[in-house]
Amino acid sequence: MSRYFRSNIAAMVGYIPGEQLQDQGFIKLNTNENPYPPSPKVSSALRKAINPSLRLYPEPLSDSLRSTAADVFGVEPSNIIVGNGSDELLSIVLRCFVSRQDRVAFPAPTYSLYDTLIEIQDAVAFRVDFPPDFSLPDSLAEQNAALTFLCNPNAPSGTLVSLAEIDRLARAVSGVLVVDEAYVDFAESEGASSVPLIRQLPNLIVLRTFSKSFSLAGMRIGLALGSEEIISGMMKVKDSYNVNRLSMTAAVAALQDMPWMKRNVRRIQRSRRKLISGLKHLGYSVYPSHANFVLARKAGQNLRSVYEELKRRKILVRYFDATGLRDCLRITVGTPKEIQALLKEMAAIDN
Amino acid sequence: MSRYFRSNIAAMVGYIPGEQLQDQGFIKLNTNENPYPPSPKVSSALRKAINPSLRLYPEPLSDSLRSTAADVFGVEPSNIIVGNGSDELLSIVLRCFVSRQDRVAFPAPTYSLYDTLIEIQDAVAFRVDFPPDFSLPDSLAEQNAALTFLCNPNAPSGTLVSLAEIDRLARAVSGVLVVDEAYVDFAESEGASSVPLIRQLPNLIVLRTFSKSFSLAGMRIGLALGSEEIISGMMKVKDSYNVNRLSMTAAVAALQDMPWMKRNVRRIQRSRRKLISGLKHLGYSVYPSHANFVLARKAGQNLRSVYEELKRRKILVRYFDATGLRDCLRITVGTPKEIQALLKEMAAIDN
Repeated sequence: MSRYFRSNIAAMVGYIPGEQLQDQGFIKLNTNENPYPPSPKVSSALRKAINPSLRLYPEPLSDSLRSTAADVFGVEPSNIIVGNGSDELLSIVLRCFVSRQDRVAFPAPTYSLYDTLIEIQDAVAFRVDFPPDFSLPDSLAEQNAALTFLCNPNAPSGTLVSLAEIDRLARAVSGVLVVDEAYVDFAESEGASSVPLIRQLPNLIVLRTFSKSFSLAGMRIGLALGSEEIISGMMKVKDSYNVNRLSMTAAVAALQDMPWMKRNVRRIQRSRRKLISGLKHLGYSVYPSHANFVLARKAGQNLRSVYEELKRRKILVRYFDATGLRDCLRITVGTPKEIQALLKEMAAIDN
Repeated sequence: MSRYFRSNIAAMVGYIPGEQLQDQGFIKLNTNENPYPPSPKVSSALRKAINPSLRLYPEPLSDSLRSTAADVFGVEPSNIIVGNGSDELLSIVLRCFVSRQDRVAFPAPTYSLYDTLIEIQDAVAFRVDFPPDFSLPDSLAEQNAALTFLCNPNAPSGTLVSLAEIDRLARAVSGVLVVDEAYVDFAESEGASSVPLIRQLPNLIVLRTFSKSFSLAGMRIGLALGSEEIISGMMKVKDSYNVNRLSMTAAVAALQDMPWMKRNVRRIQRSRRKLISGLKHLGYSVYPSHANFVLARKAGQNLRSVYEELKRRKILVRYFDATGLRDCLRITVGTPKEIQALLKEMAAIDN
């Protein structure tokens, strides 16, 4: 590594995203994409937006999207900042609230990008192990952290922490609490989102994404919701024109067709039940999932070979070469046909 | 500002982009957009890309675009990183090479986003005044800076520093030199770009954008070019999926129609000559411009009232309320008709 880099950057490995094979022959159950396409209203709005105005800068604050989203979430536009994916919002949060050597706490295992962002900011990660049932660890609030992350539903477990616990956690932590709700639309029952809590909790930030339930991973759109004061400070750190015209158009159109998103969520929930019962039938233990993926475990057995054998059979799932996760596979909930193919191959591999 | 923010973030004002009025009645000569639309090949590629694959994540490293761009620029794909606009690449550069309290040097006045990014990183800006003719200040290399910025052609002056001087500067500075070439395609003669120098200079990073010459400000695409070592380090700091599918598609298609871009550049160069001669006729001094804007000065006279009067007449230009620039207006080179309208109104205001 060149001598010009900061030492923390030179030392880090960098985040490794799940494989994005260009080979179309694979059943892709490894990066939690939605198996159903975005709403036809999105395509139609996009087609209209392909016009000479692409030569012009987009709205600097994405105001059309903020105003549409405010209606959907029952908040004010001033409670929302739009990001180039929720990844950008995570990076903004670090840069806003975390100085060099500050502590950032989160329960582990979880979304591994948090580690990467903490390294980039030269801060210190405090990982608090989840108990075996992935319930909220009691000591999470006691880490004296400038920032605490809670991925809810959690990746890769799919498990959910209740609003009452989040409310308690936000009041107990010393700094900011970020609840990353990338998967919350897939929760078994409604009312799992912490968004209504932002009114009472000045240190709470809730992240949402269009990549999962809205089938727009390819367009990179995320939202952060929080108090007006938190949001206006985050605006100072985002790039001036961070969301392009077409992504903004796609997001507005997606929010204008909530029934499409909800129908796909219901289909995925049905497939999830089938996937879980099929995996249990094959001898896996599976965590109760509120996401569009499940975590399947064979306690103590390294599942790398199952992952590799599935890949050989043109099915991609996610294997994490990390402490506590080597006996697990994370499997995205695909279409009923994809689930069927997966279970069939897993049964064949077992024999 | 909330007590949760880092003190440098709480203290800063934030970058203020030029006005992006939604009112279509204005002649918009304030943010250096291209007056001509992007290539029809871009629209056609975009229409094809509006399909169910939008549900899938984009290529994490934008490899299709890197490979197309490598051919155009005569470098290897490993010499290129793609950003969500060159703004994102500027932010990555700060986070890669600049620690808290490190020095960042640049000649001033220049692109004011540099100041903002330095504040976010809690670093120290060393502004070295340009001489009156905007030639490279001799002492720029002597600032002991971790990072030196050179906007070339410079904004808001439009002036150009030669390759020989840049080569000398890169060898003289103690850290990394970033040459921001947002406007270089508009230079009066070919061969103004520092890209060929990246082979010999391990501390040189050259930034390019699709916002200006390629008429794609609305799509947010930028490139950084440098040694493989520099680029691979920057990859660790960028967001995992920082460029969406449609922006990548647009950029590849734009590079596949270079004649379209070059024809528009020639039209803008012709209009620039007319604009400069018209402004001189009105008593302004105008810097030799190698960009798609000109800086017009009436020495010692505050031009805010001219800016305001033009705005009242539905023409937007850029007035900077900043030391050394209050007797200037920065005017984007629009279409011949827009230039004509501007000069007519300016003549009327003068009388």
